[in-house]
Amino acid sequence: MEKMLLDGEMRNRSEIKVEFEDRGYQFGDGVYEVIRVYNGKLFTSEMHLTRLIESANKISIKIPYTVEEIEAQLKELVAENEIAFGTVYMQFTRGVSPRNHPFPSTDVAPVYVAYTKEVPYNGALKPGAKAITIEDIRWLRCDIKSLNLLGNILAKQKAAETGCFEAIQHRGSTVTEGSSSNISIVVNGELKTHPATNLILNGITRQVMLKICEDLGVAYKEEAFTLEELVVADEVIMTSTTAEITPITEIDGQSIGSGEPGTVTRQIQQAFHAELERQCGHIIESVAK
Amino acid sequence: MEKMLLDGEMRNRSEIKVEFEDRGYQFGDGVYEVIRVYNGKLFTSEMHLTRLIESANKISIKIPYTVEEIEAQLKELVAENEIAFGTVYMQFTRGVSPRNHPFPSTDVAPVYVAYTKEVPYNGALKPGAKAITIEDIRWLRCDIKSLNLLGNILAKQKAAETGCFEAIQHRGSTVTEGSSSNISIVVNGELKTHPATNLILNGITRQVMLKICEDLGVAYKEEAFTLEELVVADEVIMTSTTAEITPITEIDGQSIGSGEPGTVTRQIQQAFHAELERQCGHIIESVAK
Repeated sequence: MEKMLLDGEMRNRSEIKVEFEDRGYQFGDGVYEVIRVYNGKLFTSEMHLTRLIESANKISIKIPYTVEEIEAQLKELVAENEIAFGTVYMQFTRGVSPRNHPFPSTDVAPVYVAYTKEVPYNGALKPGAKAITIEDIRWLRCDIKSLNLLGNILAKQKAAETGCFEAIQHRGSTVTEGSSSNISIVVNGELKTHPATNLILNGITRQVMLKICEDLGVAYKEEAFTLEELVVADEVIMTSTTAEITPITEIDGQSIGSGEPGTVTRQIQQAFHAELERQCGHIIESVAK
Repeated sequence: MEKMLLDGEMRNRSEIKVEFEDRGYQFGDGVYEVIRVYNGKLFTSEMHLTRLIESANKISIKIPYTVEEIEAQLKELVAENEIAFGTVYMQFTRGVSPRNHPFPSTDVAPVYVAYTKEVPYNGALKPGAKAITIEDIRWLRCDIKSLNLLGNILAKQKAAETGCFEAIQHRGSTVTEGSSSNISIVVNGELKTHPATNLILNGITRQVMLKICEDLGVAYKEEAFTLEELVVADEVIMTSTTAEITPITEIDGQSIGSGEPGTVTRQIQQAFHAELERQCGHIIESVAK
């Protein structure tokens, strides 16, 4: 019987429902994270859970657990559901209270759900993906990983409707990020990505990638770039927990560089694979299909 | 036993829960309305329900009912719960589907909940309320009455923390609207309010007020005004379904005009009261406390 967590307790997933006056359901008043599981182990979980608590703090939701406590609960859930390769999704909302805009009294406890999903690992060298560009219409606190995702899903849907995987958002001529990923460009061997301001979510995979650049000696700048720079870049890289390190090889129908994944992207993909093996153990080829 | 509607069916309220994989709960992917009830009658329900369907259309949620069908269901609910003075809240989400940004397949049905609340009617001549001003950080589709309300609730909370009722939002120096209301100013007898663009929700009470201005011969312009114009205005009016026509008599600690509700505001309040009596019947003084 598949399990999930409700407020820290392990329960049968099929029995879990939530209240319609949960502020998550009426206001999107909550925060979330998605953590990848490789070989049954949580990848970069401390970074994700630290960000979860930061996101919650930014909107004054008090999470009644430490990073270590949540991590221990998630590990137990992953073990119980026997997830070898997959994800854990978790969210905290501000809790259940009669609908009213201001925060409810402090004795209203957050509602915390977490569940697992099987997701295969497709190996380091992911093929190129297609993207569109789209105006970024989201709010000005994209640094908070909140449940207010309507702007993101409308952009992603637009991409899907044109047969693309991702929508690369821009405010005016400045590229911000993808609808569920960060976007970087490589020009003359140097990587550029939007700085971690209020206009983007500071992706964990983005942070791992920048650390990899340091280790590999790939020069990088956290600096905004334009739509014009994007489409003439040698390489474009999309990073996210689920997409890992994925080359974008076509944007708005135009090839990027040669139209094939670039050499810097390939280097970073391999180093990312090495990093996840370092944290989660060797991945045998038969599962990495 | 209090009733509510779940997907158009009358059910015991205490038995209703929703799925955690409802897209309303994970993405704020839905739309809502609040309709006022006076004398057991729905006020301006056709306008609200028309806007509900418009909001849904703007994000491609297909509501499987007509305005008339929803109205009939809500009337039945109000009668069943014996609501004389109150509100009906209703929302439609995109439905239940394993979490993924793009829209699910079209055979996923929206989830529709509606419930009532008792709210007294406090009469036409509401006293002045206090407000703060705050930067508008919301997304660029405020014309959609969606469940992505985090920007709104953070603004409202800020107002509450300083003992104020409303937060008046501005983009740069341009005033847009309140966190749960529209804002108008009166200068030399002329009313000004932000035009119904993507930057504000076109409030039903706002629309009723503009019609009242026409009837009363009060000149008005749907034109954006600045923070500077706001604080030196003769009168400031907040309109919403729950606040009806409420004068704002203090902003950021400074009195507006004389610090008392202005004459144009009083005229509009009385005409609004007359309009709701026209639609919902005479309100006896003992209930209008």
